[in-house]
Amino acid sequence: MPARKHAPRPKVAGDSPFGRVALIGIGLIGSSLARVLRRERLARHIAIATRSPQTLAAAKRLKLGHSYTTDPARAAEGADLVVLCTPMSAYAEIARAIAPALSAGAIVSDVGSVKSPVAREVGPALPKGVHLVPGHPVAGTEHSGPKAGFAELFQGRWCILTPDAKANKSAVERVAGLWRRAGSSVVVMNADHHDRVLAITSHLPHLIAYTIVDTAAQLEKDVQGEVIKFSASGFRDFTRIAASDPVMWRDIFLANREAVLDILQRFNEDLTALQRAIRRGDGRMLEETFRRTRAIRKGVIDAKQA
Amino acid sequence: MPARKHAPRPKVAGDSPFGRVALIGIGLIGSSLARVLRRERLARHIAIATRSPQTLAAAKRLKLGHSYTTDPARAAEGADLVVLCTPMSAYAEIARAIAPALSAGAIVSDVGSVKSPVAREVGPALPKGVHLVPGHPVAGTEHSGPKAGFAELFQGRWCILTPDAKANKSAVERVAGLWRRAGSSVVVMNADHHDRVLAITSHLPHLIAYTIVDTAAQLEKDVQGEVIKFSASGFRDFTRIAASDPVMWRDIFLANREAVLDILQRFNEDLTALQRAIRRGDGRMLEETFRRTRAIRKGVIDAKQA
Repeated sequence: MPARKHAPRPKVAGDSPFGRVALIGIGLIGSSLARVLRRERLARHIAIATRSPQTLAAAKRLKLGHSYTTDPARAAEGADLVVLCTPMSAYAEIARAIAPALSAGAIVSDVGSVKSPVAREVGPALPKGVHLVPGHPVAGTEHSGPKAGFAELFQGRWCILTPDAKANKSAVERVAGLWRRAGSSVVVMNADHHDRVLAITSHLPHLIAYTIVDTAAQLEKDVQGEVIKFSASGFRDFTRIAASDPVMWRDIFLANREAVLDILQRFNEDLTALQRAIRRGDGRMLEETFRRTRAIRKGVIDAKQA
Repeated sequence: MPARKHAPRPKVAGDSPFGRVALIGIGLIGSSLARVLRRERLARHIAIATRSPQTLAAAKRLKLGHSYTTDPARAAEGADLVVLCTPMSAYAEIARAIAPALSAGAIVSDVGSVKSPVAREVGPALPKGVHLVPGHPVAGTEHSGPKAGFAELFQGRWCILTPDAKANKSAVERVAGLWRRAGSSVVVMNADHHDRVLAITSHLPHLIAYTIVDTAAQLEKDVQGEVIKFSASGFRDFTRIAASDPVMWRDIFLANREAVLDILQRFNEDLTALQRAIRRGDGRMLEETFRRTRAIRKGVIDAKQA
């Protein structure tokens, strides 16, 4: 992480508060963002919309916003910022629903983990003069729902914005300012590039973790009990990752299909090579591979991400 | 973990101290065990043997034992307990070297992560009247060497012993007592069963982690930098596992070849099924799998292993 996120920053235009902010979806990320908006007094009004009346009631009990509705268009009406915080498969429908309610100059953003589909699915539905600034706060836990959120979730983490080349600069800067106030370091990059990088750093690790835990789940019952008993020897770390929200992750793999399948192909080739070395008893190949991977760990530690 | 490990236990015969204990190999596990022996006053004399003069000098500087040698036979002479703490590929040679130095009634144990080869490779070399009690403290970190060890490494962890059916009961109980004093809960099981359980809880997760980190290591340099930058999104956990000792892990995969290849085959089938679901856009299959794995996480948390 660059040092700048720890240093005090002068208040710039991008940090100036919003009037009405609409959060569509109020799970782990949405509810954490609501808490940031309150703590930092970034919005005069926080409008919360979510499809499930139970989740809406929970958000209300937690006092996350000022108004609550199951209708995204009502929440978006008069908002100068709308942030989509639902699973990504709902984006297109929500975009169509909120479009008539949006005024010129409004900003639409999101927090999804795959970025190239946002311009494709949300962009065309938005009226002229509405600014699309897709975003991805690279933060999360294995817990879900409005109760799981907390304002510090984004502290010291990255937030990646992927506006297209023609995006309104001031809109991008306002969204960037919001995430900086959440404690994050903001980087802007191309959406396709984002999706390729995250396929390896996040999507493949989650797919692998889901697989290995599912493999264990299918073992005979007696062995399964012992797998849990002795899970501290490596397996445990995978179970945490594989406890992440099933619907969110379903959508991520469907939305980032190409990049995930590409990196999965490389992974399979590398795994097959190690499998072959084990079968043939090729200790030299195994040891060489295991030495190479240590260097990457050193990079992670040097980058203060460990 | 059962509650008993936290409760005070009466001093029983199995806890009684040893005279001379020889540690052959003084890396992370060996040096942690030396520290336990000293803290708990379990041995009148700790003899340390290791092949590398540098490592031996480090052990001496750290005051881990009472005598130091590069000759395992000299360390083993007159010992009532010899613990092999080297990579497993050295076991057979060490067993042959120490055999003439062992007296009747001596116990030979080890700390290796694969247990079925111990009886096969060490057993035949030992003289009559010497008791073999293979052991596996299920504990470790990604660091190696005598400086990396610490006495609390085994606290609250499992130690698995795999003596064969004809093993001397009192010898088994003495080794069990040692590990209990290290703070571990001791379980006795069949060596083959141990190797199948650990193949899924430990060996497969490590193989997968090594593979995914190596896949990243082979990406173009510019993407690699970003992979490290955004590693907190899942990849980071794998780099920690993939930083474990290369020689130790080479030996584990060679020693547990059959069980690892078997579980790897199942893993590959499960991964291929998920890959197919992603390619076909089968969201239902993905979501169902991701829900199943949450139940295993709950098991891990309920077993207080999280």
